[in-house]
Amino acid sequence: MAGERAGRAGGLLIREAQPSDASAIWGIIGPVIRAGETYTIDRDISRESALAYWMDGGGHCFVAEEAGVVLGTDYLKRNQAGGGSHVANCGYVVGEAARGKGIARAMCEHSMQKARELGFAAMQFNFVVSINIGAVRLWESLGFAIVGRLPDAFDHPKAGHVDALVMHRKL
Amino acid sequence: MAGERAGRAGGLLIREAQPSDASAIWGIIGPVIRAGETYTIDRDISRESALAYWMDGGGHCFVAEEAGVVLGTDYLKRNQAGGGSHVANCGYVVGEAARGKGIARAMCEHSMQKARELGFAAMQFNFVVSINIGAVRLWESLGFAIVGRLPDAFDHPKAGHVDALVMHRKL
Repeated sequence: MAGERAGRAGGLLIREAQPSDASAIWGIIGPVIRAGETYTIDRDISRESALAYWMDGGGHCFVAEEAGVVLGTDYLKRNQAGGGSHVANCGYVVGEAARGKGIARAMCEHSMQKARELGFAAMQFNFVVSINIGAVRLWESLGFAIVGRLPDAFDHPKAGHVDALVMHRKL
Repeated sequence: MAGERAGRAGGLLIREAQPSDASAIWGIIGPVIRAGETYTIDRDISRESALAYWMDGGGHCFVAEEAGVVLGTDYLKRNQAGGGSHVANCGYVVGEAARGKGIARAMCEHSMQKARELGFAAMQFNFVVSINIGAVRLWESLGFAIVGRLPDAFDHPKAGHVDALVMHRKL
């Protein structure tokens, strides 16, 4: 598929990931998985398994690049099978050096548009760590509401057990 | 492992499922999956894939039997990986002919005890179809609270889009 220029100064290109993007994607998601502060992925997962999870989870995987450099990545898939197939799920990671520049927002807007094109009626994030305030605020600013609070659901490496949030919006 | 007699008249035995239980388990979960009114499993999933999901999902699978006849089955696994690994998840199905006899309750009590033994701190059901009133009441009577409501998350074959509930209790 053709990529699309996101509405952002500097010409961020968001496009479908290719197998050749694997190293760049691992360079972005690897440190986040190893830190284990946001995603419920085993912190010692192998590179191969992590990339299979991220890139080949049964949906789409995208990269956000600028001047040929991959700065972020996200996936888009159905959140549930069967009677839950009309709700999308996404995950986003921005490389450490590129944070605070609106890339996560651009990727989320892009994935919502893609999800609409694919016929999804809503999008749900199942597990937003409650103390990840930047993420919670970003998703709220993009129209997501907190529809669930999972008590002590996340064992944060620094903060200990903290709540996780379920966030949702219609598309 | 040895099975345990559940606290129920008639001598319900709940024990770890064996490969030889596959046919009996499919006889119980197959009709429920095909009906598609409660689980977010693809309604046309193959027998083989359904049994792999149910019996080999990375945790434990149990059967509840009486006089050598399997009447119900459940699984117990971690709900999330990584920082979410301390919360258990379960699924339960009782065969149609055996419903209303307390078998789901006995299986849930058994799985909570097993989850405690395995070190889980809580149990979460991610997707209880809101119009499955019998299930919602049963889980509430067993100490589960509704911690999330997912709007229109389930496409019910008869009722159309209905909410799904996230239910949770500490162990």
